[in-house]
Amino acid sequence: MENKDIYFMNKAINLARLARGNTKTNPLVGAVIVKNNTIIGEGYHKYFGGEHAEEDAINNAVESVYGSTLYVTLEPCSHIGKRNACCDLIIKNKIKKVVIGSRDINPKVNGIKKLKKAGIEVVTGVLEKECNDLNRVFFHSIKNKMPYVVLKSAMSLDGKIATKTSDSKWITSSESRKSGRMLRGYLDGILVGINTILKDDPSLNTRIDNLRDPVRIIVDSKLRIPIDSKVLNIKSSAKTIIFTTKYYDLEKYNLLKDKENVEVIIVNEKDNKVDLSEILKVLYEKDISSILLEGGGNLNYSMLKENLVNRVYFYIAPMIIGGKDAKTSVEGDGIERIKDGFNINITSIEKIDRDILVIGDVENVYRNS
Amino acid sequence: MENKDIYFMNKAINLARLARGNTKTNPLVGAVIVKNNTIIGEGYHKYFGGEHAEEDAINNAVESVYGSTLYVTLEPCSHIGKRNACCDLIIKNKIKKVVIGSRDINPKVNGIKKLKKAGIEVVTGVLEKECNDLNRVFFHSIKNKMPYVVLKSAMSLDGKIATKTSDSKWITSSESRKSGRMLRGYLDGILVGINTILKDDPSLNTRIDNLRDPVRIIVDSKLRIPIDSKVLNIKSSAKTIIFTTKYYDLEKYNLLKDKENVEVIIVNEKDNKVDLSEILKVLYEKDISSILLEGGGNLNYSMLKENLVNRVYFYIAPMIIGGKDAKTSVEGDGIERIKDGFNINITSIEKIDRDILVIGDVENVYRNS
Repeated sequence: MENKDIYFMNKAINLARLARGNTKTNPLVGAVIVKNNTIIGEGYHKYFGGEHAEEDAINNAVESVYGSTLYVTLEPCSHIGKRNACCDLIIKNKIKKVVIGSRDINPKVNGIKKLKKAGIEVVTGVLEKECNDLNRVFFHSIKNKMPYVVLKSAMSLDGKIATKTSDSKWITSSESRKSGRMLRGYLDGILVGINTILKDDPSLNTRIDNLRDPVRIIVDSKLRIPIDSKVLNIKSSAKTIIFTTKYYDLEKYNLLKDKENVEVIIVNEKDNKVDLSEILKVLYEKDISSILLEGGGNLNYSMLKENLVNRVYFYIAPMIIGGKDAKTSVEGDGIERIKDGFNINITSIEKIDRDILVIGDVENVYRNS
Repeated sequence: MENKDIYFMNKAINLARLARGNTKTNPLVGAVIVKNNTIIGEGYHKYFGGEHAEEDAINNAVESVYGSTLYVTLEPCSHIGKRNACCDLIIKNKIKKVVIGSRDINPKVNGIKKLKKAGIEVVTGVLEKECNDLNRVFFHSIKNKMPYVVLKSAMSLDGKIATKTSDSKWITSSESRKSGRMLRGYLDGILVGINTILKDDPSLNTRIDNLRDPVRIIVDSKLRIPIDSKVLNIKSSAKTIIFTTKYYDLEKYNLLKDKENVEVIIVNEKDNKVDLSEILKVLYEKDISSILLEGGGNLNYSMLKENLVNRVYFYIAPMIIGGKDAKTSVEGDGIERIKDGFNINITSIEKIDRDILVIGDVENVYRNS
């Protein structure tokens, strides 16, 4: 791999990242066009349904792209989707060489073959790992027709998310809490259980300039949600979806259906609770490709047990809380034998102010990246 | 500070460390003697009651120490203790200059003044922080007449030390477990509660070549310990001390007092339990200056609450266990408000195999270093 290839592909990756939080079920893609070792055009896929990165870069080029090299983080599309096929555009503009990061896993995409057939030089696998990581959400969701789920928890060094009296403000530092809210801005939805609403009445919004709110998703099998809850009444560009079962409260249902920006969806039950897999499938159909799970211990355990969690973000504060009755981040029944534990492949350990952020992938969950 | 001072003081620190686990209530001290920028003698305080580092270095010198420079991690003693005062030895041998790391906090020691009065050049504060850290156990214990306590726990990422069925073999990797057993070799005693004995029947030994076993200390207010417990019967150079209260079982007491290498000590109770402060004071009188606390959640919390824990070692495995009833590392009553949490000043975060080891000092515990 040439140094200049790495340099230009990194540029393309950084461009792709600018759209985090805005592409829904579309991938993050960046592209740069290079002529005589100089970038003459940059582009990225800015939002769901918008211009593809290749088209954006070509349109932004400050001189003719004839004979140039295109660096793109993901294999250019060869089929007609929402936009014209990028391959056709590349061929038409007489770009000479295309350098690609990730292969597309969509079987309908076969851009490499099409480009080569047109006599264009194609180089693949440049920063492939980094490009795959950029789109782990896209690859997972397109393959499984379910959103990629990130479990986030903030806890003390001894694993508590609150004291025995339920005091939890604040275990982690303000920097950690801001980092957690940024995650909300990058993921499409935020999922909590009804107990979190009843106990904390959170807003579940981002509160950071230039970051939009995620869709608020509440699991509430009997519709116990108070009609004056913040999630039902805050001003937000995103709506609130409540998943319930046939055991729902009819009176509450009628009140909720008149609420602006609120949707109630009835799903099947499983062991007397909402069927979590079904919820994820419904959400994907609504173009939600990624979810931040901020459940209490029960919902977190149920999601793990159903094999629905892809990644964890554990913010660990340097504090000991203690207490046999203090709540922990993952509760429910729990596993019986150590050998059945959910193994985490740790990908990053960083300090945020005085806290430690541990990020890792849950093993054995299907993942393409 | 000159580079060569740092170089030679580091040599002295490394020599001092060779005695870890063997000096009891004495400090760790290393010394090197330098002439014409060449080390001509090295020494360290090898064991409780043994030669002081200065004496050892002078004895080991390969040529006359006349006119040389002595580097020593701790201020040389000026009083007559178990050995002759080092200051007298330095003066007698006509050493020209003495470079010192830590000041001694023992008011009986006033080596600097004595050396200067004898016309010897004295430089202080070279790698002082590192030298202080070397003897945090010594400084704490001599000042407080109590051992320095290190709380060690091995847990999952969600804070569990066992599953709901009490399975805990093994949450952490074999490398982490070995690291934990090395701590046993470096500290004078290991403290557990009776429940740990009843549940796990551990050996509480080191099982590492060249590392001696710590004194096993069991808190057992009613003498429920089974007479065939491993801690009462294993072959070990160290003994087992059981602390009980007036509620002890007389029959068991009579059986225990005939056991070799076992001592039973009756202490006062506090809230129906053994008085933990009193235990620590008794242990210090028995030349135990440091203790590894491997309690269950209740003992760990009681020790923290009594302000008796100095440092924590948390081995965190990349695994999620879950379970409302699974045990956590610190239980007991726990604090009520977050503001009353035990704050930890994290001093190190490292990977051990797949695990994370977080080391930190408990804030607000009296400490000299």
